[in-house]
Amino acid sequence: MNQIDLMKELHTFSDKKIIMLVMDGLGGLPNDEDKTELEAAYTPNMDKLARDSVLGLSTPISPGITPGSGPGHLGLFGYEPLEYQIGRGVLEALGIGLDLSPNSLAARGNFCSLDPVSGVITDRRAGRIPTEECSRLVEMLSTIQMDEVSITIRPVKDYRFALILEGDGLADDLSETDPQKTGLKPLKVEALSSNATKSARILNQWLEQAFAILADQRPANGCTLRGIAKDPGLPSFAEVYGLQACAIATYPMYKGISRLVGMEVLDAGDSIASELHTLQANWGKYDFFFFHVKKTDSAGEDGNFAEKVKVIEETDRIIPGIVDLQPDVLIITGDHSTPSSLKAHSWHELPILLYADNIRPDTLRVFGERSCMQGGLGHMRHIDIMPLAMAHADKLAKYGA
Amino acid sequence: MNQIDLMKELHTFSDKKIIMLVMDGLGGLPNDEDKTELEAAYTPNMDKLARDSVLGLSTPISPGITPGSGPGHLGLFGYEPLEYQIGRGVLEALGIGLDLSPNSLAARGNFCSLDPVSGVITDRRAGRIPTEECSRLVEMLSTIQMDEVSITIRPVKDYRFALILEGDGLADDLSETDPQKTGLKPLKVEALSSNATKSARILNQWLEQAFAILADQRPANGCTLRGIAKDPGLPSFAEVYGLQACAIATYPMYKGISRLVGMEVLDAGDSIASELHTLQANWGKYDFFFFHVKKTDSAGEDGNFAEKVKVIEETDRIIPGIVDLQPDVLIITGDHSTPSSLKAHSWHELPILLYADNIRPDTLRVFGERSCMQGGLGHMRHIDIMPLAMAHADKLAKYGA
Repeated sequence: MNQIDLMKELHTFSDKKIIMLVMDGLGGLPNDEDKTELEAAYTPNMDKLARDSVLGLSTPISPGITPGSGPGHLGLFGYEPLEYQIGRGVLEALGIGLDLSPNSLAARGNFCSLDPVSGVITDRRAGRIPTEECSRLVEMLSTIQMDEVSITIRPVKDYRFALILEGDGLADDLSETDPQKTGLKPLKVEALSSNATKSARILNQWLEQAFAILADQRPANGCTLRGIAKDPGLPSFAEVYGLQACAIATYPMYKGISRLVGMEVLDAGDSIASELHTLQANWGKYDFFFFHVKKTDSAGEDGNFAEKVKVIEETDRIIPGIVDLQPDVLIITGDHSTPSSLKAHSWHELPILLYADNIRPDTLRVFGERSCMQGGLGHMRHIDIMPLAMAHADKLAKYGA
Repeated sequence: MNQIDLMKELHTFSDKKIIMLVMDGLGGLPNDEDKTELEAAYTPNMDKLARDSVLGLSTPISPGITPGSGPGHLGLFGYEPLEYQIGRGVLEALGIGLDLSPNSLAARGNFCSLDPVSGVITDRRAGRIPTEECSRLVEMLSTIQMDEVSITIRPVKDYRFALILEGDGLADDLSETDPQKTGLKPLKVEALSSNATKSARILNQWLEQAFAILADQRPANGCTLRGIAKDPGLPSFAEVYGLQACAIATYPMYKGISRLVGMEVLDAGDSIASELHTLQANWGKYDFFFFHVKKTDSAGEDGNFAEKVKVIEETDRIIPGIVDLQPDVLIITGDHSTPSSLKAHSWHELPILLYADNIRPDTLRVFGERSCMQGGLGHMRHIDIMPLAMAHADKLAKYGA
């Protein structure tokens, strides 16, 4: 039995409330003073919480594997990321705030440069055209209309755009059109199973029209489609955990992933303070609160150690406001590490703090990576976080007699 | 998705180099002075390395399971040993330095004693005849020739020999002929699937001739065949990890296992010093170096605590020579434990040391079992070692967007 099925079977009602506070990219590596960002940050409130909590380190997927945002969050939500996958096209659409229905088919598009005579790709990213140029070209392509589907196309960033078809009978078992190297022509979309034939035909017709429209443009006179995917139809939080769940997040990507698992996405403004306000204002209405802090990751990606420290400290300052609500279970962790020294997501484990009644406390007094190495939770996996949260909230029945 | 498929998908090129130093049977148990062999050994170089490394304990297969050399190394190489299996006949052949091709079928043979009248087995090991007697009988059996296959037969040790057939259309879905107790006749080889019919027929013809030749010998007047197997066709290191891998080992068994995963086996002499020389001489040619030290295990199997300490100290003395090469990732561990007090392989976890850029260091200063219990890697599994090594060598792409 996989874990999702186990949770479906065992979940039960209690009136207890769970908060999962996720600082995106929280995990770090030591700087010259042998401190990670979290260790360097002044976090009296999290440290105070640590004394009454049990700590540990959690692996997003498996040792050595660096997750993207999709798999990182699926793990946190209890969905084994190697089993439940979200297509790249869907993530791209969610990332710019587009909604998908079960009838939607989403693709990531890349503008590219073609040799005008031979038609082979000379630059797979069209010289990384600026976003404004991308917007201009997308506007041209938005004139394409087709009988069987309604079409949404939006610029993402640089040479990237999102394309969404909506209509009956669309399937996503489709090949990509990027040949992955220059000197080759863009490929056709191919149906990889018979029920995707219609989707392939429509996408190829769309591409034909798109190439005609782009023919005289420079440097982007072509495009490729990648990661063509549907909403994966994940079982919802209500179904799996029996939870009335909401998401408090400021960035489209995380709102989108939350929506894929059936969370209600609240209007949370654009700051950590406004997110706390949203939490407080909605405290009576839900029993699970996913609270997402984005800028720890952004600072890590920028290689800005001091800024990441600052965002962690800013988050620490709202902890009293969270604790005042008297959550029955409070988890603090991240979706993946983004050490400033690497300027990228990484595979390193995440510090995790579990604060609840009926924990078996360890003796640690500081929330930080090296402290968590000695924590009572040991080395765990992201997908085990939700069952632990459910258990500590009295929401899981006994397994077997 | 299993881990091998995940590695196939995510591996990427970097020019970084990985050394995996395996002291066979490294793990031990405390003696009367409460020291394991590794803890008792004077290892200033490994301890110095430990200060800049992250340590832990690794389980070869799963808790409580004692691995043979085959599964122990498959785990180290990232192949789940319960999923990828090497037949006993293949290991027996590799252990005496025989090479196998995809057309080979290898069996382990046991000489046995039969009642000359009834033909039932009276001793399954023919009184454990000495190796010289085994060699004499093997020479007699080597006269058997058959039309469809070429035959290699070699003594192994005591009553054991290796038999290898080579020819077209051989399959290994075959039963063994040892009835597992005395008082029963040797069984026939049976094909367990239809494509093994030819192999069964040939082996039964070979057995018939062998029994005729052995009829007048005493005490070994018969034989049984076990573990009849082909090269399992493991996906290669190049395919799985994109690595140019080589093996530096002194014993045939380990050279053979390395060859099964596509490593190039280097001529490494017969001492730890000559192995270091081989590493240094080939440093420019590969990006993965499996470096195997055998005699830790041999000493453990002999119950010789002092000798095992000595081999560990001898290995410690080559550490500076290894570190001088500036490997990007250096792993030190063992395939399984062989505590001198048990005189045998055991299930105990292995101390492991990971030295690389971008580790999250712990605070330990000594490489030993009890120290490793507190290590930052925690309790891990052998199959997670390769993904961690790959990650720290910048050889894995991000999973998902």
